Amino acid sequence: MEPDVFYILGNKVRRDLLSHLTCTECYFSLLSSRVTVSSTAVAKHLKIMEREGILQSYEKEERFIGPTKKYYRISIAKSYVLTLTPDMFWYKGFDLDGAELKDFQVNLSSLKEDPQGLSEMLSEFLKANRELEKILEAFRAVEAYRNKLIKMIKEEYLKSIGDMTQLAILHYLLLNGEATIEELSDRLNLKEREVREKIEEMSRFIPVKMINDGRVLLDEAKIIEGGNNGEENPGKGE
Amino acid sequence: MEPDVFYILGNKVRRDLLSHLTCTECYFSLLSSRVTVSSTAVAKHLKIMEREGILQSYEKEERFIGPTKKYYRISIAKSYVLTLTPDMFWYKGFDLDGAELKDFQVNLSSLKEDPQGLSEMLSEFLKANRELEKILEAFRAVEAYRNKLIKMIKEEYLKSIGDMTQLAILHYLLLNGEATIEELSDRLNLKEREVREKIEEMSRFIPVKMINDGRVLLDEAKIIEGGNNGEENPGKGE
Repeated sequence: MEPDVFYILGNKVRRDLLSHLTCTECYFSLLSSRVTVSSTAVAKHLKIMEREGILQSYEKEERFIGPTKKYYRISIAKSYVLTLTPDMFWYKGFDLDGAELKDFQVNLSSLKEDPQGLSEMLSEFLKANRELEKILEAFRAVEAYRNKLIKMIKEEYLKSIGDMTQLAILHYLLLNGEATIEELSDRLNLKEREVREKIEEMSRFIPVKMINDGRVLLDEAKIIEGGNNGEENPGKGE
Repeated sequence: MEPDVFYILGNKVRRDLLSHLTCTECYFSLLSSRVTVSSTAVAKHLKIMEREGILQSYEKEERFIGPTKKYYRISIAKSYVLTLTPDMFWYKGFDLDGAELKDFQVNLSSLKEDPQGLSEMLSEFLKANRELEKILEAFRAVEAYRNKLIKMIKEEYLKSIGDMTQLAILHYLLLNGEATIEELSDRLNLKEREVREKIEEMSRFIPVKMINDGRVLLDEAKIIEGGNNGEENPGKGE
């Protein structure tokens, strides 16, 4: 049976738990320390998500000492789109596997802004449907790609730099574009001073900028230039 | 405050109610007759959706006789996208107002399938983010357009043909591409024979095909050809 993702996401604590699970390996007490509700409530939410087929738990021994711990990981890889208006309601889910990286030409400029009569309206609607199909295919492809890439980035960062907190900051910035020190402090359960220190450390490896107003940004221009060193990418996109 | 759309959609009955509300004007007892739960349950779900700011109710007098009835309409016009995988979780909502109908060139073919080293991975990720931005802009634009158009189609169909049941079938086919007689029968609370009759009637105005296996389809080629009569649309898309 398909998991009811909307039901799962209809709760702020579950959304927060899922968000933490995507950036690092999480066991119960770590997850519990990152959200503001009681550990009983966290246990309940984890159970609901396991039952719905969104999460899997697994046991893992601590590296040096101590009993095994129960870890959690998300067990689906899907994207969803939905539209809800007074005249239209639909939604669709996509599995993020094996999408092809190709180019898409989406032609919306030739749709008529003001079609006359039922027959022209229907015709324009069906043409818009065809463009929508392309958009959804492109969305699925780019999400499948980003999903593959962010996994590679996490593994590479842990292997070569090895700092989980820095990685959590990087993960957040890649997905959200920017962050404030305050957001990161909330999210990582660290003092703002500690967040600033982590970003300082991180900036030795990754072009990241702290701005005076408390915002943190990746230096996109520098990263893209850096990534193109060596063989230049001949893509027309950039 | 933003309505919690995920919470609302996390319930099958609410999804069905919303779906009915988008295709025709609905009052309580009509809505209640279209879903399988008790009218007490329907009342509860409508109340929840009103409280969350998804629905508005309004009173309307019957045309000829009788007391006023309470009608419901959806009071938001938004699209959402979300991705949930073991390594990535994000979602975003868009208001569907005033998006521009322009063309979009999405270049995924130049993204590297197998980037080497952290710096190239980050660079490719940020490039993918830029393509994603374009895809989301295109998605918002096409949904804003389809939303405007489907409202026009509903009004035009009621004015020129005036059959609510035919309109409900057309609405379903436009949004879902195709339907089975069985689905339509469930959805409209009609016998399969009655659905077939309605489709027969409708086919005098709209090119619609019933296939032997019970599927119903719009005849896309005919509709698009019909809509292009008179001034030909010079769009490159088709």
